[in-house]
Amino acid sequence: MNLSEQYRKIRQASEAICRPLRTEDYVVQPVVDVSPPKWHLGHTTWFWETFVLMKYDLAYKVYNPDYNYVFNSYYETIGARVIRTDRGNLSRPSVEEIYAYRQYVDAAMDRLLTSCATDVNVQKTGLPGNVARFLEKSNDGPSDNEPEARSVLRDTLLLGLHHEQQHQELLWTDIKYILGHNPLFPPLSGADLDDEGSAEGKGFVPMSAGIYEIGFEGEGFCFDNERARHKVYLNDYEIAGSLVTNEEFVAFIQAGGYGNFIYWHAEGWDWVKNNQIKSPLYWHMMDGKWYHYTLAGLRPLDMKAPVCHISYYEAVAYGAWKGMRLPTEWEWEAASGKFGWGKRWEWTESAYLPYPGFKKAEGAIGEYNGKFMVSQMVLRGASVATPAGHSRNTYRNFFHPHLRWQFTGIRLAR
Amino acid sequence: MNLSEQYRKIRQASEAICRPLRTEDYVVQPVVDVSPPKWHLGHTTWFWETFVLMKYDLAYKVYNPDYNYVFNSYYETIGARVIRTDRGNLSRPSVEEIYAYRQYVDAAMDRLLTSCATDVNVQKTGLPGNVARFLEKSNDGPSDNEPEARSVLRDTLLLGLHHEQQHQELLWTDIKYILGHNPLFPPLSGADLDDEGSAEGKGFVPMSAGIYEIGFEGEGFCFDNERARHKVYLNDYEIAGSLVTNEEFVAFIQAGGYGNFIYWHAEGWDWVKNNQIKSPLYWHMMDGKWYHYTLAGLRPLDMKAPVCHISYYEAVAYGAWKGMRLPTEWEWEAASGKFGWGKRWEWTESAYLPYPGFKKAEGAIGEYNGKFMVSQMVLRGASVATPAGHSRNTYRNFFHPHLRWQFTGIRLAR
Amino acid sequence: MNLSEQYRKIRQASEAICRPLRTEDYVVQPVVDVSPPKWHLGHTTWFWETFVLMKYDLAYKVYNPDYNYVFNSYYETIGARVIRTDRGNLSRPSVEEIYAYRQYVDAAMDRLLTSCATDVNVQKTGLPGNVARFLEKSNDGPSDNEPEARSVLRDTLLLGLHHEQQHQELLWTDIKYILGHNPLFPPLSGADLDDEGSAEGKGFVPMSAGIYEIGFEGEGFCFDNERARHKVYLNDYEIAGSLVTNEEFVAFIQAGGYGNFIYWHAEGWDWVKNNQIKSPLYWHMMDGKWYHYTLAGLRPLDMKAPVCHISYYEAVAYGAWKGMRLPTEWEWEAASGKFGWGKRWEWTESAYLPYPGFKKAEGAIGEYNGKFMVSQMVLRGASVATPAGHSRNTYRNFFHPHLRWQFTGIRLAR
Amino acid sequence: MNLSEQYRKIRQASEAICRPLRTEDYVVQPVVDVSPPKWHLGHTTWFWETFVLMKYDLAYKVYNPDYNYVFNSYYETIGARVIRTDRGNLSRPSVEEIYAYRQYVDAAMDRLLTSCATDVNVQKTGLPGNVARFLEKSNDGPSDNEPEARSVLRDTLLLGLHHEQQHQELLWTDIKYILGHNPLFPPLSGADLDDEGSAEGKGFVPMSAGIYEIGFEGEGFCFDNERARHKVYLNDYEIAGSLVTNEEFVAFIQAGGYGNFIYWHAEGWDWVKNNQIKSPLYWHMMDGKWYHYTLAGLRPLDMKAPVCHISYYEAVAYGAWKGMRLPTEWEWEAASGKFGWGKRWEWTESAYLPYPGFKKAEGAIGEYNGKFMVSQMVLRGASVATPAGHSRNTYRNFFHPHLRWQFTGIRLAR
Repeated sequence: MNLSEQYRKIRQASEAICRPLRTEDYVVQPVVDVSPPKWHLGHTTWFWETFVLMKYDLAYKVYNPDYNYVFNSYYETIGARVIRTDRGNLSRPSVEEIYAYRQYVDAAMDRLLTSCATDVNVQKTGLPGNVARFLEKSNDGPSDNEPEARSVLRDTLLLGLHHEQQHQELLWTDIKYILGHNPLFPPLSGADLDDEGSAEGKGFVPMSAGIYEIGFEGEGFCFDNERARHKVYLNDYEIAGSLVTNEEFVAFIQAGGYGNFIYWHAEGWDWVKNNQIKSPLYWHMMDGKWYHYTLAGLRPLDMKAPVCHISYYEAVAYGAWKGMRLPTEWEWEAASGKFGWGKRWEWTESAYLPYPGFKKAEGAIGEYNGKFMVSQMVLRGASVATPAGHSRNTYRNFFHPHLRWQFTGIRLAR
Repeated sequence: MNLSEQYRKIRQASEAICRPLRTEDYVVQPVVDVSPPKWHLGHTTWFWETFVLMKYDLAYKVYNPDYNYVFNSYYETIGARVIRTDRGNLSRPSVEEIYAYRQYVDAAMDRLLTSCATDVNVQKTGLPGNVARFLEKSNDGPSDNEPEARSVLRDTLLLGLHHEQQHQELLWTDIKYILGHNPLFPPLSGADLDDEGSAEGKGFVPMSAGIYEIGFEGEGFCFDNERARHKVYLNDYEIAGSLVTNEEFVAFIQAGGYGNFIYWHAEGWDWVKNNQIKSPLYWHMMDGKWYHYTLAGLRPLDMKAPVCHISYYEAVAYGAWKGMRLPTEWEWEAASGKFGWGKRWEWTESAYLPYPGFKKAEGAIGEYNGKFMVSQMVLRGASVATPAGHSRNTYRNFFHPHLRWQFTGIRLAR
Repeated sequence: MNLSEQYRKIRQASEAICRPLRTEDYVVQPVVDVSPPKWHLGHTTWFWETFVLMKYDLAYKVYNPDYNYVFNSYYETIGARVIRTDRGNLSRPSVEEIYAYRQYVDAAMDRLLTSCATDVNVQKTGLPGNVARFLEKSNDGPSDNEPEARSVLRDTLLLGLHHEQQHQELLWTDIKYILGHNPLFPPLSGADLDDEGSAEGKGFVPMSAGIYEIGFEGEGFCFDNERARHKVYLNDYEIAGSLVTNEEFVAFIQAGGYGNFIYWHAEGWDWVKNNQIKSPLYWHMMDGKWYHYTLAGLRPLDMKAPVCHISYYEAVAYGAWKGMRLPTEWEWEAASGKFGWGKRWEWTESAYLPYPGFKKAEGAIGEYNGKFMVSQMVLRGASVATPAGHSRNTYRNFFHPHLRWQFTGIRLAR
Repeated sequence: MNLSEQYRKIRQASEAICRPLRTEDYVVQPVVDVSPPKWHLGHTTWFWETFVLMKYDLAYKVYNPDYNYVFNSYYETIGARVIRTDRGNLSRPSVEEIYAYRQYVDAAMDRLLTSCATDVNVQKTGLPGNVARFLEKSNDGPSDNEPEARSVLRDTLLLGLHHEQQHQELLWTDIKYILGHNPLFPPLSGADLDDEGSAEGKGFVPMSAGIYEIGFEGEGFCFDNERARHKVYLNDYEIAGSLVTNEEFVAFIQAGGYGNFIYWHAEGWDWVKNNQIKSPLYWHMMDGKWYHYTLAGLRPLDMKAPVCHISYYEAVAYGAWKGMRLPTEWEWEAASGKFGWGKRWEWTESAYLPYPGFKKAEGAIGEYNGKFMVSQMVLRGASVATPAGHSRNTYRNFFHPHLRWQFTGIRLAR
């Protein structure tokens, strides 16, 4: 599949997720970490416009200069923006206007990408016409810079595709939050996602002490935070072949796990008390039975499914109750070939920090990952909401320890 | 016009205000004091359902029992409810569903009202069939209670109509806030409201010291907070024949009024500094000229129009700068026949407190006014957004001193 | 008693209140409304230094220029100051240093006052030497201004004395708060205050409708907010001859008064729920019996004493439960000769607003009262902590409706 | 030196630090992270009483049962306690009472320790009488448990000594904060601390890739978080021989480092903007020159001294500006023999997380370290305020990234 086809397919996937929504569902932001679906659709479009079209297409005319203020997420380099908590306060641009914006940008992208060769590899085939002319104009000497420019363009295109896929996952999680926190608990009829998933595997995988290589290396795409590949020394350890199930987590609740400080971090214990946490997100006790909200509506809890929507604090407390712990991200990656993964993002006991040799890109793209490397924990794997082809065993997801709206789960180590 | 016709007309007026909205505009709540337009449409409908149909129509079947939780505003008597700050977090019920709810309730109301006599005066004509039967069933002896029941029903119907009109004014103010705080400043094409208005009158009206009668008396409708009519003694005073204009207020700004604590209450001065207030709400300085947002979009300030969207603090500070003061609500009412009013709600120097002889109604309706009689200031008059027939010179509006999203203005006294 | 003697006596009274304190008790500020005792001692001293000595004593040398920043309470005119919430964060100046500051200022005041005539009336006796010279120097012609200057000086001296007495009352309330919120509940041995008091009077005093004169008039001292004396019209009313007792308030609690929203303002009900209020301040239920903290330590509640330390919300709720209300401040003043008062500051149903004809003084002294005339309620009377000679029936005290650390009580009207 | 002598010496050192304080300085808590000096003196005493005397001395009588509520810091196991933000609101117990408490506990500890053998090693010498009897009574069979009990007692005694030393460092930092945030900037005359220190060393130390052993091993004392000793693999790196100086940090400021988001974490940039940070803590620009507060008062900045009182965010931003980074805690420890350290706690790029094989102790002591292992960063080394003998190269200090009141500094790596 060439880049042009990939682009079209991934862009359409974003819209397919939103198809079952009503217009009103596109608008709201019930909590700061959730963005309105229409904002996701606009922001991903703005990303292509800002980082590809405005940079490489000499003929491109900005769709609406005010949109930069509305759809910039966090790029200081690109200028002022709506503060994050205000995203849900904007009724305009309307959903219809944002779809028109998508069409406009997609058409421009299509022109740019088809003026490239049909091969996926821009590097081998020369720059598209607009880009070439752009460089002529801006650089006073394109010939020398062409290979480098080709490489940067290609990297940006791939980054844009993966960025769009990240927002597809966020669309699922944010839509679930929006409907799952509505007092009417409306199902999302026609949603193409089974947000339950099933647990697999069993027992513990033994791993031997020694030096392991960690991080991405090779031809395909990866984010900057997966580099550089480097050596780590690991002690002997065992890692669970399966995720913790709802049944196992119910046992923790029944054993009073949420009421005993001994299992919790001090800050986790404050979180439990201040927010009166008594179960994973979306769980409701009704007439003595556990239900949980899924995109198909309120359902009895599936005891065999892997537990989902838990914070780092809860994952650690569960592990402490079991007399075990979470794996580090290195332990996880080193063993990742030996168990099935992909249903839940799995909390690790590693903080999100730069790898040895980590380098931020130049310019705005350099703000993509590095500036978040403090106060967050790493999650590994992928979830039921991760687009196909978007995951790999070196992928480093990261969230603050209290967050639960992602499809997060627990794998234990010892 | 009989009650049935009045009902229909007033209900349609609410929907007419919303006609130019896009679906997205119905949903958002950019600040706690603003409610989403769809909430207003649902809440007013819930009011009829809860206080009329469920009480007086034996055959009425509740449309959706969950709506009580969604659309109850502040009636503790009626049970739990969505907290006010969460109104903008609800994508459902959808706008379409709320219009269907309105239709359902309107049809039931129509049946109830046409089963009444055609005369507006329920008291003279006997109870409608459902109500009569309801009383038979619940009271074991309707005959004795019928006159009283008729009177309570009629009062509740009139209260419902005036309640709906209050929300019509709120619809205008909230819609203006929603669009006027959007960075795109979209005009509301087709809006049936000139939110500018023009100033009239001039000079000062002299009033003589003496005893005046204040408060409502007579046949028509009034809110409980306008009673009992009572005597007050007023000193000699003069009250302005006209509202303060934008031009006059610009002079205050240019004289450094927002930067000199001497004109402000201590708490007003904190408000100015903490919120960096430098002008009335909706004003924007662009290239050295004042613009303001109106429902027709961003427009150059009309210097002759009465100043609008100011807080009590600003009204008092302006008065102090002029060496004058605001009138008390009694001074305002006593002189109200001698100047034109109705364009701006006018801040008075009176706190919102019960009149001598004030009595709350029994039950939930008793929560309508009395429980807000602390920490708020009285406004008198009416505004460009007040529905025709909804205002009178004894009407007591009230807001916290920092609020500006209403169409508020300044009339001075000395 | 001449001014010099008055000054000495009142200044010594402030220190006498603090005599039983330990050094540590002088320092803390457990809540924003409470100031550390050492701050009160310094602030009152700064008041004399700033508004008298620096203005009228040509030879006066400021004790420490940094103290202005530390001891200015809220006078914007006088410059920057420690924010109010930080008063308890200052270990320096030490208690010893503040007493030295008092001695220094008292000596300077003594010189100034004894250079006045021995008569209390500065107006009749000419200006003291320093003041006269000060005016010569600053005004290029003192003779004409002398009578006015004499009058302003005299007013400022009287204001300073009454200001110091206000802080004496605050010293008692703040000391009680500091010790009463310490988990060890230490008594203040040697305190010269019975903070219980006893209830007197009974029945209701009937008052006839008509015009009454309200506000201060005459020779003695009053604050600017007690003027101008003016007429008000009152309806027939009755006012209680006695304050509500602890026994009566216990009955309200036992009847579930704190749990029934129907008696409360909306904002009072939020206050009850958010702060889990279940009794007046300082009350503790131990083994099924009510105790309260007094300066003599934790004591069983005296059922016959007037209830104390209640908010406006509680006073209103109690009245609503009894089917009565609070008097307005005009009703209170008009009837004040017919019942005993002076044990509790008594909440009225009047907001703190300017009287007709109210005028702020020029300069910093004008910030004394007027700028607080919003969002507060008036209290009338005086309390067990009010210095002798500091109260009169036109005195207007004022606090925000949620405050309880003052010696506040309830007198009902109907 | 035997345990008894060690105990006495370390306890006296805490009091020696406080000797130059005035009584008022013992009381205040200007920010949540700072505790009043009198609280430190009481809390460390409570630690001995609770974890040693009440556990091992059968005859011990608790000094004041209410003190547990006042002086428990964060031990959930031990029961309710004053919330941390309220420590500065307590005027009682007085300073004098706390010194009396210390004397009482010290006398009891002296009896217990001298009933041990004179040797430092309890393990070799048998249990003191009280302890032996205690075990007899509580365990129904002391003989078998004696070796283990001896070991636990000895560990607790050593922990208590090191705990007291940690609070000695906190006493210095908290006293500096209390006086350095007073608008009078009082020096602490007689303080036995040069809080400036001087920079040493230069250049960069090269380190070769390979496996290093990290963590404590051996006979002496260490905290549980320094275990288990384990292998890590490090790449080639270089680490600075010297700390960053004030002069170097001034260059960062002059280059606009605080105004350029590119050097900062997203959350660090928010911290800079929200708190208007423009320099390290305690720095003041006066007449174009940098001054800083030291325990000797406000002093011109010593340009050759190592920069102090900076947050993790600032340390990272400085490194980014230099094109370098902070070392990980493993890099720091591996190289720690090759540079001088001990003047500043040095921020590392490592989050505070458990080492492989980390085990919490049983009971309340298990709350000492483990429950804080989230959202904090590790600092290595020691500072001018660290008591002699309290530091080692495996010591892991930890703070939240925004904190600056410790004597923190920067050592770069690349």
